[in-house]
Amino acid sequence: MASTIFNECSIYTTNARILPLTKFQLRQSVHFYLNPKRPCRNPRQTAFLTTTTVAMTSDTSAKVIDGKLVSKQIRDEITSEISKMKEAIGLVPGLAVVLVGDRKDSATYVRNKKKACEAVGITSYESHLPEDCTEEEVLKCISDYNKDPSVHGILVQLPLPHHMNEEKILNAVKIDKDVDGFHPLNIGRLAMRGREPLFVPCTPKGCIELLHRYSISIKGKRAVVIGRSNIVGMPAALLLQREDATVSIIHSRTENPGEITKEADIIIAAVGQPNMVRGSWIKPGAVIIDVGINAVDDPKSPRGYRLVGDVCYEEACKIASAITPVPGGVGPMTIAMLLSNTLTSAKRSWQN
Amino acid sequence: MASTIFNECSIYTTNARILPLTKFQLRQSVHFYLNPKRPCRNPRQTAFLTTTTVAMTSDTSAKVIDGKLVSKQIRDEITSEISKMKEAIGLVPGLAVVLVGDRKDSATYVRNKKKACEAVGITSYESHLPEDCTEEEVLKCISDYNKDPSVHGILVQLPLPHHMNEEKILNAVKIDKDVDGFHPLNIGRLAMRGREPLFVPCTPKGCIELLHRYSISIKGKRAVVIGRSNIVGMPAALLLQREDATVSIIHSRTENPGEITKEADIIIAAVGQPNMVRGSWIKPGAVIIDVGINAVDDPKSPRGYRLVGDVCYEEACKIASAITPVPGGVGPMTIAMLLSNTLTSAKRSWQN
Repeated sequence: MASTIFNECSIYTTNARILPLTKFQLRQSVHFYLNPKRPCRNPRQTAFLTTTTVAMTSDTSAKVIDGKLVSKQIRDEITSEISKMKEAIGLVPGLAVVLVGDRKDSATYVRNKKKACEAVGITSYESHLPEDCTEEEVLKCISDYNKDPSVHGILVQLPLPHHMNEEKILNAVKIDKDVDGFHPLNIGRLAMRGREPLFVPCTPKGCIELLHRYSISIKGKRAVVIGRSNIVGMPAALLLQREDATVSIIHSRTENPGEITKEADIIIAAVGQPNMVRGSWIKPGAVIIDVGINAVDDPKSPRGYRLVGDVCYEEACKIASAITPVPGGVGPMTIAMLLSNTLTSAKRSWQN
Repeated sequence: MASTIFNECSIYTTNARILPLTKFQLRQSVHFYLNPKRPCRNPRQTAFLTTTTVAMTSDTSAKVIDGKLVSKQIRDEITSEISKMKEAIGLVPGLAVVLVGDRKDSATYVRNKKKACEAVGITSYESHLPEDCTEEEVLKCISDYNKDPSVHGILVQLPLPHHMNEEKILNAVKIDKDVDGFHPLNIGRLAMRGREPLFVPCTPKGCIELLHRYSISIKGKRAVVIGRSNIVGMPAALLLQREDATVSIIHSRTENPGEITKEADIIIAAVGQPNMVRGSWIKPGAVIIDVGINAVDDPKSPRGYRLVGDVCYEEACKIASAITPVPGGVGPMTIAMLLSNTLTSAKRSWQN
């Protein structure tokens, strides 16, 4: 279903400077790929059509931060580590997903998570409970996974049916299996200096990982996070602050948000408003991480809609120095970070 | 001992517009007090020397936010509430303080807390353990207070001796007796939307309470917090955000901090650097909450030092619309909030 709120901005652009990474030396060696002649609605896809090294037609266009490629590399790293761990000590990480009800989108997410687990060697467990089950049945299911030593991570697929207390159910997940990192104790540790969270929420962790893998400096930089949700905006701001950025959070009550974003070296947009961040909001040379994935009506698309971010990509890529596309930016990183958290949990269970 | 880092700024100023509050209708009724002829090193003290209503000599001087007066009002409110509660249900709030070692400053703080408790009708308990006691002895003491139903709040006086794990000891305080609000679970809830902390840390809570009691609007305002400590800066930022301010946190790694503070409608300074925030850092009309209490050498003072804040008061009061003095601003609020948290805890114990 397409979003009803949508700021149209020009769809087609050229000159996106694509910057994927080599498979083995992501931080050290960078090649540039570009098809300068082809209009580029999703520059990441275009990137692999031609592989001309360091070809650029414009100095004013942004590097594309390729989340799909980075995610692939991380999943390869995880696969290799799990394989070695299995061989050395016989330990196989396990991730359990609790799904309640029959929402098609939730079923798709759970299926994708299971597939991603299998691909890297994580054993996946699933409990599918009916829409009209009781809160106690869900709590019992979580309690069983809490006790099961072969399960190192537990996910409760959201949203839950309305008759359930989401906070109570999420809090039932044992803190050392909370691979989503949503437990308030984890968030508290994330907020506090000198404390370490057991797990960092996957999407904001993915945002920071993209900055790291592209060697984008955070320390001392001015960063603006748009949105203050518990699962993205707020933990993203806390992570940026842990890395010594000077962080501002803007939200629906902020007056003149564009004046604040215009001062930022790094913008993380996580607000769920298609194309909200316009070119005029961006400081030349800023780095843009776009977490939004918004479906907007598009009669030209066979599906009748297309996906856009919170940032008007076509305007932003002419001003920013680097930007994540939508799709193919932050999206693929979330699941990679979930796998990474599950592996971390399995290792920790062995050490303890 | 005086701090060695100190930016001198002119000591004497006039024209501070003093704004204390009436005892019973703090929010509604405001009187102005001023001695326009007397140089004003501590404007709050000066305020009570004369009581001319609405006397101002300059439009450019700031209102003084009188923490001592507000704190007194809050302590009166608490006294009245405790008295009624005792009469109605026989419940008396209890606060236990755990002091380890023989630091004179810690002993003074503990003594002041005990006196403040007694004054409002809170029973105070104290365990004074020797410097060379074991971590287990401290944990045992906390455990006993955790179990004691007459104790509703437990404070561990910091700093602890070096051979002790502060995190482990603080985490031993039962979450529903953590009246300091320092437990990561409390901080996590403070950070998350839709969650409620059991207790809010006392000093930042006192800062926000001052804004409320002076009817200073927070929603939609730009706020800058200077400092990101676990006990003041970070929770102050989270509190401002919960009240819909647009918050930026600046710290030692921030480049050009004055450019950021200059955009703020509200500044909370909690960095421990005497007179760091100069007049040129402040937007005209901003509200300044100065948490810093720094001792600086002063041969003219009988004690050889004097106390100054993180904000150069003499410059700031000419530019800000309202400002807390040091001492007599945020300082007295901290203990008032501790008493308030203890009362809240006692009430909660009765309800549960």
